[in-house]
Amino acid sequence: MFVVGSGAKHLEDELRKLGGEVIDAEIKKFPDGEKYVRVLGSADEVTVVQSTFRPQDEHLVELILLGDALRESGVETLRAVVPYLAYSRQDRVTKDGEPVSVRAVMRALGIYYDELYVFDLHNPETLKFFPGKAINVSPARAIAEYFGDKLGEGIVLAPDKGARGRAKAVAEKLGLEFSHFEKERISPTEVRMRPVDVDVAGRNVLIVDDIISTGGTMIKAANLLREMGAGKVFVAATHGVFAEGAIERVGKAVDELAVTNTIPTPVSRISIVPDMLRL
Amino acid sequence: MFVVGSGAKHLEDELRKLGGEVIDAEIKKFPDGEKYVRVLGSADEVTVVQSTFRPQDEHLVELILLGDALRESGVETLRAVVPYLAYSRQDRVTKDGEPVSVRAVMRALGIYYDELYVFDLHNPETLKFFPGKAINVSPARAIAEYFGDKLGEGIVLAPDKGARGRAKAVAEKLGLEFSHFEKERISPTEVRMRPVDVDVAGRNVLIVDDIISTGGTMIKAANLLREMGAGKVFVAATHGVFAEGAIERVGKAVDELAVTNTIPTPVSRISIVPDMLRL
Repeated sequence: MFVVGSGAKHLEDELRKLGGEVIDAEIKKFPDGEKYVRVLGSADEVTVVQSTFRPQDEHLVELILLGDALRESGVETLRAVVPYLAYSRQDRVTKDGEPVSVRAVMRALGIYYDELYVFDLHNPETLKFFPGKAINVSPARAIAEYFGDKLGEGIVLAPDKGARGRAKAVAEKLGLEFSHFEKERISPTEVRMRPVDVDVAGRNVLIVDDIISTGGTMIKAANLLREMGAGKVFVAATHGVFAEGAIERVGKAVDELAVTNTIPTPVSRISIVPDMLRL
Repeated sequence: MFVVGSGAKHLEDELRKLGGEVIDAEIKKFPDGEKYVRVLGSADEVTVVQSTFRPQDEHLVELILLGDALRESGVETLRAVVPYLAYSRQDRVTKDGEPVSVRAVMRALGIYYDELYVFDLHNPETLKFFPGKAINVSPARAIAEYFGDKLGEGIVLAPDKGARGRAKAVAEKLGLEFSHFEKERISPTEVRMRPVDVDVAGRNVLIVDDIISTGGTMIKAANLLREMGAGKVFVAATHGVFAEGAIERVGKAVDELAVTNTIPTPVSRISIVPDMLRL
């Protein structure tokens, strides 16, 4: 049985349509700003779906309150599916005195939840901070399915070496070639990106990443691919954490921009719900 | 050593002036809305001061992130002083399917903090949910000191029997009489409040409570005291969780309304900082 938080309301219709059984929940704010949650049913095993995009902290607290309510109601196995996990990029101390924020979030969720499922976590190593079973779910199937026909015999590229695994996962679902961009210093002050070991001329290209925020890298990569004579240029990401104006800027630079619906945005056309139902 | 969160910035000047040593902290939001915190120093024992009024969830998450940062920096004994604890009124299940929200908050704070100090908790029994040492601090000294001279040989009243202990604590500091209001059914449809076993005629009265939100009860009580010929009527509360317009409405009905500075409001004229420094 599923319980859907306010950060996953946009997934509920599809979840129900595909056969997910949902326990209704009342979620509101008191006049003083405190969240009130109430689950209108219970079961031995419950999966709470809650994405923690902006307002992140409200969505996180709500997820914790739902955990308390469900434990109170007698749930034995409690799972959290968090399509987008807030604070996942604050995954290490880069300056003395900083927290590892994603650790704090995972520990807080661990108070109530036995299992945690997140989609395309920025740094999967941070799953170790969750005290129970924690799984990183790949959106590769969904992205491959969405862009497969459009891409044809094209190439899948990652914007940097660290993201290469994502490009590989999508490419392998489609039986296509994959590679990544690397940065090359062409003068003391100038750095150029170039795709490694592939010839993009005349071929469609899909660039995949986990998060798009400003979209600057994607735009640079797309412009470069045009110069190199690529065919259509597509951009996909799991999480559309778009800065203001980013959708329009990236959209103009490419043939199509699409992200998954871990965060609801105007270009969240790739659904993770089928994968969620398989967990 | 103290670290001051963004929900306690209004207490920092006084804290420093009264001799509190403060470790500076950088607290900001990333463009995507995530909080970033960084503490610019460390010590073996650190007390984080963070009040969790609106936006409650942001203040709570910040307190948890500060806890992670300070543990990371090697703090051995970590205390949280939370002048106003969010969710403290959600202290029991009144309808099936509800959480005990204050329990969830206390457990989450317990991940990082060894000791928790809150001011005038709505239901002190809920301190049991905090895994470490948890103390409820009374604001009675501060309230008594502020209203003592104004009150003269007056009376201290609680708005209901449950709050009687608060009236008693303030009255005893001043060597004054105290009592509480009770509700009396005067017809099948009408309920009247009346102060129990005290004669208010010609005497100043201070009504004390833990939280004022709409102020409706306080206004009713004040009007009644006027009818009964009381002298000056003062209202004090620990936490000014004022609904829109409540300060003005209560202010008009009484000679003076003052609350402590657990929450910064235009009438937060009673300081808890001296008590905080004695913890």
